[in-house]
Amino acid sequence: MQKSLSVYDSDGSTFAPLVVIELVSETKEEAIAWLLNRVRDKQQDGGAELLVEQLTPGAQGTEKDNPNVYVVGASWQRLLYGAEDVGLFKEFNDGSMRGFTYANKHNFKEFQGDGDGFLSMAECQYIIKHELDNLRAKDEAHVPGYPKMKLYPGKSVIRRMQSKGILVQVFPLHEKEELKRLSFSWFKKIKLSFQPLDDIRHYFGEGMALYFGFLEYFTLALIPMALIGIPYYLFDWEDYDKFTVFAGFNLVWCTVILELWKRLSASLAYGWGTLSRKKAFEEPRPGFHGVLGVNPVTGRAEPLYSNAKRQLRIYLVSVPFVLLCLYLSLYVMMIYFDMEGWALMIHDEEPTFWTGLLLFIPSIIYAVVIEIMNLIYRYAAEFLTGWENHRLESTFQNHLVLKVLVFNFFNCFASLFYIAFVMQDMVLLRQSLATLLITSQILNQIMEAFLPYWLQRRRNKKAHKRMIKTMEDKELPLSEQVKLEADMSTYLGTFDDYLELFLLFGYVSLFSCVYPLAAVLVVLNNVTEVYSDAFKMCKVFKRPFSEPAANIGVWQLAFEAMSVIAVVTNCALIGMSPKVKSYFPESETQLILWVVGFEHFLLASKFILTFVIPDVPKHIQIKLSRLEFESLEALKKRSIKVKKSRYHHSTLNSTFLWCVKPKNGEVPKNNMKGLQGE
Amino acid sequence: MQKSLSVYDSDGSTFAPLVVIELVSETKEEAIAWLLNRVRDKQQDGGAELLVEQLTPGAQGTEKDNPNVYVVGASWQRLLYGAEDVGLFKEFNDGSMRGFTYANKHNFKEFQGDGDGFLSMAECQYIIKHELDNLRAKDEAHVPGYPKMKLYPGKSVIRRMQSKGILVQVFPLHEKEELKRLSFSWFKKIKLSFQPLDDIRHYFGEGMALYFGFLEYFTLALIPMALIGIPYYLFDWEDYDKFTVFAGFNLVWCTVILELWKRLSASLAYGWGTLSRKKAFEEPRPGFHGVLGVNPVTGRAEPLYSNAKRQLRIYLVSVPFVLLCLYLSLYVMMIYFDMEGWALMIHDEEPTFWTGLLLFIPSIIYAVVIEIMNLIYRYAAEFLTGWENHRLESTFQNHLVLKVLVFNFFNCFASLFYIAFVMQDMVLLRQSLATLLITSQILNQIMEAFLPYWLQRRRNKKAHKRMIKTMEDKELPLSEQVKLEADMSTYLGTFDDYLELFLLFGYVSLFSCVYPLAAVLVVLNNVTEVYSDAFKMCKVFKRPFSEPAANIGVWQLAFEAMSVIAVVTNCALIGMSPKVKSYFPESETQLILWVVGFEHFLLASKFILTFVIPDVPKHIQIKLSRLEFESLEALKKRSIKVKKSRYHHSTLNSTFLWCVKPKNGEVPKNNMKGLQGE
Repeated sequence: MQKSLSVYDSDGSTFAPLVVIELVSETKEEAIAWLLNRVRDKQQDGGAELLVEQLTPGAQGTEKDNPNVYVVGASWQRLLYGAEDVGLFKEFNDGSMRGFTYANKHNFKEFQGDGDGFLSMAECQYIIKHELDNLRAKDEAHVPGYPKMKLYPGKSVIRRMQSKGILVQVFPLHEKEELKRLSFSWFKKIKLSFQPLDDIRHYFGEGMALYFGFLEYFTLALIPMALIGIPYYLFDWEDYDKFTVFAGFNLVWCTVILELWKRLSASLAYGWGTLSRKKAFEEPRPGFHGVLGVNPVTGRAEPLYSNAKRQLRIYLVSVPFVLLCLYLSLYVMMIYFDMEGWALMIHDEEPTFWTGLLLFIPSIIYAVVIEIMNLIYRYAAEFLTGWENHRLESTFQNHLVLKVLVFNFFNCFASLFYIAFVMQDMVLLRQSLATLLITSQILNQIMEAFLPYWLQRRRNKKAHKRMIKTMEDKELPLSEQVKLEADMSTYLGTFDDYLELFLLFGYVSLFSCVYPLAAVLVVLNNVTEVYSDAFKMCKVFKRPFSEPAANIGVWQLAFEAMSVIAVVTNCALIGMSPKVKSYFPESETQLILWVVGFEHFLLASKFILTFVIPDVPKHIQIKLSRLEFESLEALKKRSIKVKKSRYHHSTLNSTFLWCVKPKNGEVPKNNMKGLQGE
Repeated sequence: MQKSLSVYDSDGSTFAPLVVIELVSETKEEAIAWLLNRVRDKQQDGGAELLVEQLTPGAQGTEKDNPNVYVVGASWQRLLYGAEDVGLFKEFNDGSMRGFTYANKHNFKEFQGDGDGFLSMAECQYIIKHELDNLRAKDEAHVPGYPKMKLYPGKSVIRRMQSKGILVQVFPLHEKEELKRLSFSWFKKIKLSFQPLDDIRHYFGEGMALYFGFLEYFTLALIPMALIGIPYYLFDWEDYDKFTVFAGFNLVWCTVILELWKRLSASLAYGWGTLSRKKAFEEPRPGFHGVLGVNPVTGRAEPLYSNAKRQLRIYLVSVPFVLLCLYLSLYVMMIYFDMEGWALMIHDEEPTFWTGLLLFIPSIIYAVVIEIMNLIYRYAAEFLTGWENHRLESTFQNHLVLKVLVFNFFNCFASLFYIAFVMQDMVLLRQSLATLLITSQILNQIMEAFLPYWLQRRRNKKAHKRMIKTMEDKELPLSEQVKLEADMSTYLGTFDDYLELFLLFGYVSLFSCVYPLAAVLVVLNNVTEVYSDAFKMCKVFKRPFSEPAANIGVWQLAFEAMSVIAVVTNCALIGMSPKVKSYFPESETQLILWVVGFEHFLLASKFILTFVIPDVPKHIQIKLSRLEFESLEALKKRSIKVKKSRYHHSTLNSTFLWCVKPKNGEVPKNNMKGLQGE
């Protein structure tokens, strides 16, 4: 942990700051005092039992700086208890992964001394976030000083303050030293090596590490496709009959790599302890609102919102809106084709170098327009999904992903489908595909990494004009570091990154048989993507809270859906190829029936393959079932032990009560004997 | 429980006999004595702690009767502990289903007095079977008296004796009174009512009750289809264009009923306590053999068999064998078509009433041959799957089901596919479908219920000639009842019953649009099927051990696969209908493309529908997550309580140890306070 930076506790002892809480500068004193007390209170009094101090402004502190910035930390003991609370899995002495318990701490492999360094800083920050989120109102009716900021017993204090806007942000601090080391091994040295996934997970958490793992895996998996694509490109540019072989390979390949990824991600997640981790009960997301009622699962007070109303909003507003957007996108596509025709006309009338260039202009404009439409739609989708008022963050995310995916898919690929199957113009298809792919790649890299970086640079320059420039490389005082990081942009999650990969996967798989070079372009893009993503995570954004994840979730499904669509389009393209057509000179019907039959066969094989390849590798399955078996056996043994004693027929649940019951303090003898027999 | 029949224990007390163990008559005395001792031994000494007595032959006992028949029972206390061991779920006081624990017994709804009657007889028998199966060898190297019957520590004694053939059978006893009541409410009174599923479950267990539940559900679900089918049959026999509407309805209907069944079966299974029940670790099936090694999961000695060898056997022997059988079936089909042509020729030459009847002969012969081939193949498949040497009974079953399903599907439907898509003769298709359906139904009913019943009757008459006939209705002495039941056929599980339903579902869904009357026939068949199945369970077969089941398992998948195939065939049939063809007079290609597009749309909707309809009804989902939430909370509270005390940092695991540790018998005060605070 970051020892160099430390804050003095109210007791006078120091602690390492882990998380920053920023309140708006005009927050009332009583609210602040109340919040800090609740954070510091003992757990049995309903507090979070964390350490929290106001950040003392550094030497360069000015009037304009927000004084209400607090750093939160915790004793290592508290963190270890927290690790048990959140259900962290750690490597046990016997090499298996087990749920960490404080009582068993010395049996965990990396636990040394008093346990300092056992948890990574990302884990500590995740624990603190969890404990802060679980800080619940007791009998307060509202936040002190804010009568309108209603509270009820069990309401998460932090979430209420966040949704009402007095809590600006909660974010974890970067670890300068660690970050430097990570950046170096990740993207600063140029050499052929795998990404340091374990280090990434150590610093950014499992969700992020899985994204980078998937990015790398996806890139490597495309290399065979790219290698096969190059000779096709070099020798047979216009002869796309041979591409049917390529397409066949492609389809099998897509299925296999997606299945193998499941196994790889299970291996990774097992090693990181997230595979067997039990999901905690999900709290309502911060934006969720409704009439106060009682949650039927927890029995706690909680806003309730009728599911019927939500369904109405989805089907009467969101679905028509999405359909309208799809129509709009179709309309734009038609304009593009008009422009395309117009450019072609000009070029045909007066073919010069400049009119030759003009041919590419509509595609480029269209690619830019697509990106802009995607961006606008993204905001609309977020607003709509928020308005649908989903109770859980996960449901919200799923609905958002679905909306965005459908539109992006349509927006990016509709024109290609139109060219391929309505116009049946393979040359134009190839040209459009190349333009779309390259333009969107370039735009993405700019929008994603360089623009935020440039914006931040400019902002920083303005804000820290007074700062001595040489200090930038040296160690900053804590207050400056916090101020710097608070101003950094917030990373909004892996959504956009996965979406980009998804669309690239679409370009590669949907039309691979007419443009085998797509795989090469995507591989090239992904290699730079690794670097730009790594760069933006380390340099551009605030550190995100680590998210425990066991797989890439809904994206696995999205990629699999894409590979099913790819089977259909590729079969159709094969059926349209002149060579295949020449096998059935007399009857087009025969040709179509054969192609459809082949497609059904491929789809069936795909499903069988998905079914036959186990999702979790054998050796991990054995480890998982061993754990399960052990816990079953432990339960059984306990009940036999209890039976032996026959004094108090106590089991797992009542054992504990039994310890309490005999008030005379005497432990009955026959019971002791029975128990000690074990 | 059956109070009327009771056996004297070795202590002189009586117990109700639940399960019968039959050893071969020449079993050595020492082996018997050893087995009985092991069964009677206390659990802490590795015994099963059950009550077991030799059956005293009744008045009619003859020399020929096997003396080595033993009845097993248990004290109610032992059974309650056993219920905890096997993880039975029972209704709690608050109406939710919870895992039964002996300590908590008084909090369960139906627990009264000392708990007699809390468990159904079927549950008691299941518990006894579980405890017998879990009776493991300690340090015996072999079964006493049989040096060749090797044992090793941890080997299930009963399974070894079964696989070596000295244990003839273990079966649960019928309950005369209960059975009479069940038979009456189930099939003896003729009136329109649902089956008494709860009573069936009470008597035969969850697996059987789910089968009958599915049979009933399936029949009811077919009624709308049958009702719509009747006017089609009455008015438009030869006009099958209108059937396209029927087929469309059919496809949606199939998907919906399968999805709704999942929800219904989840509701049933929740009420029966099997939905949230944890599956115990599966032991190797009795027939499994291999080199003695250590199981990586349990760490116990166990035969191991290389997975690679098994795969080789599957892919190099089983798969080719299945393919060969499929080829054979095709060959037989071709012979059938030859016969069909020959009959038609004769009829055309000389059309009389008799030659008209002759037209049906080939179909009937073919239907009989199909049934015979299915039967023979069934034995071959069982042998092959046994030879593949699967470790688990469940894997064995899955491989068997797959083999049998593929062949039966091919055998039953290949000719129909041939007629429909190669010969494109809809009249013949309709006729073949009707003949196949009716013949196979009649054959099935005979093979399934009446033949075994008749065989048993004959056997019984021979064996019990001496018995006074009037006694049959009166209560038999225990020894006679046991003898009678031991001679009944053994019910081999629901496999054949589900297979029959699966094939009927195929007849209804695959070609529904050419023969809408199929649904009517299947409904009629199913109504009689309910009665004949109920009859055979109650009268023909030995009582089977109850099998806890939460769903119909692999059959759900099989039915869903069938409904996917149905979409494809029905779309193809629609495309071939003259009316649809007339919409595309100029271009067959257009027609096919439309049909294929429509089919893809249907398939996509099907998958989306499967995805959108939740598998478990909301109110049960809430109950399930409440249980999960409570157990998480309990864990958390415990760790906070422990933290408060800070005396011994004990958690769930160590709480128990803590009770043991303080040898001076003094309970530390601060700990007591902390614990009592709860």
